[in-house]
Amino acid sequence: MQVNGRAYRSIWLAADGVGVEIIDQTRLPFHFAVVRLDSLEEAMEAISRMLVRGAPLIGATAAYGLCLGLRQSTAVKDMEEMAGRLIGCRPTAVNLRWAVERMLRCLLPLAEEQRLAAAYREAARICEEDVVTNEAIGRHGVSLIREIWRTKPAGEPVNILTHCNAGWLATVDWGTALAPVYAAVAEGIPVHVWVDETRPRNQGASLTAWELVAAGIPHHLIVDNAGGHLMQHGLVDLCIVGTDRTTASGDVCNKIGTYLKALAAHDNGVPFYVALPGSTVDWTVDDGVAEIPIEERGAEEVLRLMGEDETGTVRSFAIAPGATPAINPAFDVTPARLVTGLITERGICPASRAGLGALYPQEGQ
Amino acid sequence: MQVNGRAYRSIWLAADGVGVEIIDQTRLPFHFAVVRLDSLEEAMEAISRMLVRGAPLIGATAAYGLCLGLRQSTAVKDMEEMAGRLIGCRPTAVNLRWAVERMLRCLLPLAEEQRLAAAYREAARICEEDVVTNEAIGRHGVSLIREIWRTKPAGEPVNILTHCNAGWLATVDWGTALAPVYAAVAEGIPVHVWVDETRPRNQGASLTAWELVAAGIPHHLIVDNAGGHLMQHGLVDLCIVGTDRTTASGDVCNKIGTYLKALAAHDNGVPFYVALPGSTVDWTVDDGVAEIPIEERGAEEVLRLMGEDETGTVRSFAIAPGATPAINPAFDVTPARLVTGLITERGICPASRAGLGALYPQEGQ
Repeated sequence: MQVNGRAYRSIWLAADGVGVEIIDQTRLPFHFAVVRLDSLEEAMEAISRMLVRGAPLIGATAAYGLCLGLRQSTAVKDMEEMAGRLIGCRPTAVNLRWAVERMLRCLLPLAEEQRLAAAYREAARICEEDVVTNEAIGRHGVSLIREIWRTKPAGEPVNILTHCNAGWLATVDWGTALAPVYAAVAEGIPVHVWVDETRPRNQGASLTAWELVAAGIPHHLIVDNAGGHLMQHGLVDLCIVGTDRTTASGDVCNKIGTYLKALAAHDNGVPFYVALPGSTVDWTVDDGVAEIPIEERGAEEVLRLMGEDETGTVRSFAIAPGATPAINPAFDVTPARLVTGLITERGICPASRAGLGALYPQEGQ
Repeated sequence: MQVNGRAYRSIWLAADGVGVEIIDQTRLPFHFAVVRLDSLEEAMEAISRMLVRGAPLIGATAAYGLCLGLRQSTAVKDMEEMAGRLIGCRPTAVNLRWAVERMLRCLLPLAEEQRLAAAYREAARICEEDVVTNEAIGRHGVSLIREIWRTKPAGEPVNILTHCNAGWLATVDWGTALAPVYAAVAEGIPVHVWVDETRPRNQGASLTAWELVAAGIPHHLIVDNAGGHLMQHGLVDLCIVGTDRTTASGDVCNKIGTYLKALAAHDNGVPFYVALPGSTVDWTVDDGVAEIPIEERGAEEVLRLMGEDETGTVRSFAIAPGATPAINPAFDVTPARLVTGLITERGICPASRAGLGALYPQEGQ
């Protein structure tokens, strides 16, 4: 996507063909800064400190992280140890495991001296496939927006609510939940996005809002508490969110708070869709609430916020009494019964084992 | 309640018997500052700038505000004009209108020279009655906590989730939603409170957490997104919230986001109670979603936050791109069907016209 008139992806191979460059998403929306990764450890830190986030981008970064690690050793034992360390960086994102295991499957059969070059090729392929996948998600998802638009009075935009950031910054390009929005804009359909700020890390306020400003798409920021009220008053036509892990039965594990919005959508008859690449489906898990371990992040993310003060300095601020502790579950699970449908690169399906199985017959067996 | 070993209320007559003193709640949790009000205008500013907030405290402040205004004129025309200005300071809180109209009812029949002294007496009576009311809410509400405690394994606390601040800072003393919590602690029942931070103004993080720290009650701060996840995993035994306006049919207008928590409680079989003085019931309104106008506050509250930087300075900081607009509805309406019961000063009743009518037969006619 365009930033200041130049086309960017969220991750790319540096000009020297060795290092990998990313956008430091912890500095947005205040600073647009590119960071170069030169080692496995730097890639791991980029993932765990969330310079990169979003399931598909985490997968792509892990793939390139393994390439950087292979520059030190291409021995099987070392590769497997590096893979384990990468997978441990973020427990929830199934794409992380998926990308690393795909890399190993590609590399292990090869002769040792072929592995490094093959790793870079495979990581690039993962990135290219992600872009193609997201374009397809956008193509399928825009049909929902188009349909709603046709029922609205002339000139009125389609109001879409999204939670967290599942835009191009969460993927290699286009995004998942925002891909249909970008596709609608490209088609000339007027849209307006309600952006949940998405505490504690405010990815909505800092990343989704930033993406929409960069793309010139009308939007309003709202607090996470406001979506239910907007839906009660007919101000939301459609919800689209991303997902970090989807179970074989269609339960959706996504950023904390998604479940609350899905409840409100269900209570008000607002369609609630989840956009995802097939790689995000965890075919081994059935009951999301019971089976998916939820990452607990540090209390500091709740007790403090990053913001820009009146002098333009970005600082960390305390918002609670010093003696108050906090807990910080990063994700929640939205049961399939609250999900109107899943928007995948292969089409839209019901959030169910049968729905997913029809689109992914091999994986769904 | 106690602050640093001294008993405070949230509003009191100054030692000279003329001015009124309040706690500047916009400076909590970082600074505990007492502010003196000497004029109608200062009282109006305290209400509209939210130095005082919470339906009962707004009512008490408006009552004293009228006293301060009467020091300039006790003519009927002026009193009515001042009453109108006070009522306009916050559109949602029904107690504001209730307190001001009660003052007028008391004062208008009196001879002009009697009005000023009578006004101070009536404002003091409103405050005393609020304290008695909240003590009664605590006495009734603690029965719910006691009942849950008896079903829990020995030593385990009762986990109570609350939204916004309906503690003693929201009333003259004791609070509404927190009154049962304080009563439980006084009885020796172990409790643990989940404190919703309550964006945009973070009254949970800044006021409820501060109250609980001051009272030494175990608690954790959570983001507004987290409650649903906690309820899915059995970590919430009971929700208690306050209300700014309750309809005759039991719909509850309270801080934005309350509706989302009520949906989650309903979806997970967690009892969801609303604590309120009878004065908060608006007997003229039936359908809360359709009929209650929702106060829209400034976008700045969404786009910026108050916090303490690393040097101990409390500042306002931006959390979104400069070009991003925001909307800021301050309340939402939780339909009666999602409310397990109402905790009033007269007892606990179903959230329905029949339930309220049984406790308030005169008003409910």
